[in-house]
Amino acid sequence: MPGSEAPASLARVRTLVEPALRRAVAVLSDEIRPAVEYHLGWVDEFGKELANDGGKGIRPALAVLSAEVVGAPAVIGVPGAVAVELVHNFSLIHDDVIDGDTERRHRATVWTLFGVGAAIVAGDALLTLGQQVLLNPSIALGSSADVDLAAASRAARLLADSTAEMNAGQALDLDFERQRSVSYEDCLVMEAGKTGALLSCAAAIGAVFADAEQGSVDALARFGAQLGLAFQAVDDLLGIWGDPATTGKPTFADLRQHKKTLPVTAAIAAGGPGAEELMTLLAETELSESQVTRAAELVDALGGRQRATDEARTSMEVALEALESAATNPAATDDLRELAHFIVDRQF
Amino acid sequence: MPGSEAPASLARVRTLVEPALRRAVAVLSDEIRPAVEYHLGWVDEFGKELANDGGKGIRPALAVLSAEVVGAPAVIGVPGAVAVELVHNFSLIHDDVIDGDTERRHRATVWTLFGVGAAIVAGDALLTLGQQVLLNPSIALGSSADVDLAAASRAARLLADSTAEMNAGQALDLDFERQRSVSYEDCLVMEAGKTGALLSCAAAIGAVFADAEQGSVDALARFGAQLGLAFQAVDDLLGIWGDPATTGKPTFADLRQHKKTLPVTAAIAAGGPGAEELMTLLAETELSESQVTRAAELVDALGGRQRATDEARTSMEVALEALESAATNPAATDDLRELAHFIVDRQF
Repeated sequence: MPGSEAPASLARVRTLVEPALRRAVAVLSDEIRPAVEYHLGWVDEFGKELANDGGKGIRPALAVLSAEVVGAPAVIGVPGAVAVELVHNFSLIHDDVIDGDTERRHRATVWTLFGVGAAIVAGDALLTLGQQVLLNPSIALGSSADVDLAAASRAARLLADSTAEMNAGQALDLDFERQRSVSYEDCLVMEAGKTGALLSCAAAIGAVFADAEQGSVDALARFGAQLGLAFQAVDDLLGIWGDPATTGKPTFADLRQHKKTLPVTAAIAAGGPGAEELMTLLAETELSESQVTRAAELVDALGGRQRATDEARTSMEVALEALESAATNPAATDDLRELAHFIVDRQF
Repeated sequence: MPGSEAPASLARVRTLVEPALRRAVAVLSDEIRPAVEYHLGWVDEFGKELANDGGKGIRPALAVLSAEVVGAPAVIGVPGAVAVELVHNFSLIHDDVIDGDTERRHRATVWTLFGVGAAIVAGDALLTLGQQVLLNPSIALGSSADVDLAAASRAARLLADSTAEMNAGQALDLDFERQRSVSYEDCLVMEAGKTGALLSCAAAIGAVFADAEQGSVDALARFGAQLGLAFQAVDDLLGIWGDPATTGKPTFADLRQHKKTLPVTAAIAAGGPGAEELMTLLAETELSESQVTRAAELVDALGGRQRATDEARTSMEVALEALESAATNPAATDDLRELAHFIVDRQF
C-alpha cells in the first residue's frame, strides 16, 4: 500500500523544525512550560526528559514543503511550520478538556495531570505563541533577522482565519452532541473546519512566506483542505472498522461513543426504517455489544461505509489535482504527493 | 473626587467602536455567537436583545485616544479598540471557567449557562477574532479599505505579546493558589501580567496604527502598564475594604477567598508573629467571621494597606509622567488623564 512507510521528508523536516519548536516553547513562562513539554511528549509527568515521542509532524512537513514547492529554501517554511504545530497542539489540549478525554496516545491528558485551569491556560498560551512566532520569527529561528512584515502579516492572517474555522468546527461538533441526527452536509462542514482548516493553512503558509503568487497559495490551500477531508473520512472509517490491534481502540469505537461521523450521517441520510433503527440505537445512553454490532451492520447496509470511502477517494483526487496546479519544484511535489498518500492511506 | 463621573470620552468612543465591535462579532459562527452576545450583555440567556449593559469600555477608549494623542483621527484607533475588547472578553470567559465563578456583574457566567466546552470555544474564538480584526480591519470597519500591512503586523505582534504576558499572569495566579505564601514582588509580576499587559497594549495600539514614533508608542505602553498596576492596587484595596453597598460583595471579600493580593503579600513580607498568624489564618479552609475580621486587622497593622495605597499612588504618578512624554495632542492628553483618574480613583 502506498505511503505505509513514513516518508523521508518527515524526518528531514523534523530535523529542521524541532530546534525551532523547542526555541519557541522555551519562551513560555515557568508556570506554563511544563504542561506543554509534557503534552508534546518531551518530558514525563515529573518533568524528566523522554526520548522524543512527539507527533508525526505532518503539519510542519506540509508547511516546509509548501515553501519548497514554490521554489523557496526549506528554512523559509520553518516559522509557519512551528506556528501550525503550536496551534494544532492548542486545539488538542483544549479538545481533551472539552471532551473530558483522559488519555491521548496512551498518555494521561494535560488536564488530568495539571488540572482544567492549567490546561486551558496552556492551550491559550500555544494559540498566542503561534501568532507570536509568525509576527516575530526570531522567537523560533533564534536570530534577529529582518522580518518581511507584509509576508508575516499575510501568514498571520491566514493562520488566524484558519484557527477561526477550526474553532467553528469544534463548536459545531459540540452542538452535534445535542442533536438526534446530523445531516451529511453538516458533518462535512464540521470536518472541513475541525480537520481541514489547519491542514489547509499548513499546506499554504510556507508559500505565503515565500511570497508565492496568490494562485499558487490558493491551490496549495485547496490541496491541504481536501487532504484534510480525505484524512478525516478515512479516520471516520477506521473509527468504526479499524483493527483494534492497530488502532488501540475497541471495535466500532466511534459507535460506542455515539459519534456522528461521515459513515453514520451518510447512513442516516439514506432514510427509511434502517435509518430510523440506527438513530434509535445511537440515542441509547449505553449500547450493548449486540447493539453496537447491529449499528455497524446498519451503517454498512445503508451505504454509509461506501459513501465515506468514495468521499475519501474523491477528496484525495481533488487534493492531488490542486497540488499539480500549484507546483514549480518537482522534487518537493513528489514529497508532498508521498506525504499525502502517507496521511490518507492508513491501515493503522 | 476626580474621575468619579464617567468621562465624556467613554461615551464618544463607545459610539464609534460599538458598531465595529458588533460587526466583528457578527462573523462568528451560529454555534459560537450566542454565548458571546450573552457574555457581552447584548442579549439575555434566551437570545432576547437587552438594552446594552456592556462593560465601561475602558480598553477601547484607551485605544482610540492613543491614536488621537499622537495626532491621528479617532477612526485609526478603532481596529485596535475592537481587538483589545475582544481579547479582554476572551480572558474573562476563560477566567470564569478556571476560577469556577458562577456570576459576573450579577449575571450567570457563560460556562454555567452554555457549558464548559462552549465557554472554552467561545473564548478561543474571541482571542482568534482579535487577531483577525487587526490583520484584516475590514472585519470591524465593514469597508474593504487598503490595509497598511506593516502597521497591522506591528499591532498584531503587540497584541500577541501582551496576550502572552496576560496568559503568563493567569498561570502565575493559578500557581499562587497552591502556595502558602507569595512574595510581594511575585504578586506585582502577576498583576502586571494579568491586568497591566492588556491595558498597556490598549494604551499603545492606536499609536501603532497611527505609525507614531517608537518613543511615543513605548511611552504610551508604559502609561497603560503603570495605569494597570495602579488600577489593580486599588482593586485589591477595595477587595478587602470596599463598601459592600457599592462593591456588591461581602466585607473583606478577597480575604474570605484567600486571595493573595498586594495588601496581603505586603503584610506577609513584613514578617514576624503577625505575618505568621496571617498566613495561618489564610491557610484555613473556611474562615469564620471573627477570623476574617482578624485577618483584615493584621493586613492593616502590618502595613499592607498602606503599601498597596502607596503602590497605587506611585504607579499613577509614573503613568501620568509617561503620558506627558508621549503626547502631541493636548485635548486627547486631557481625555487620557481624565480617563486614568476615572479608572484608578474609584470608590465603587
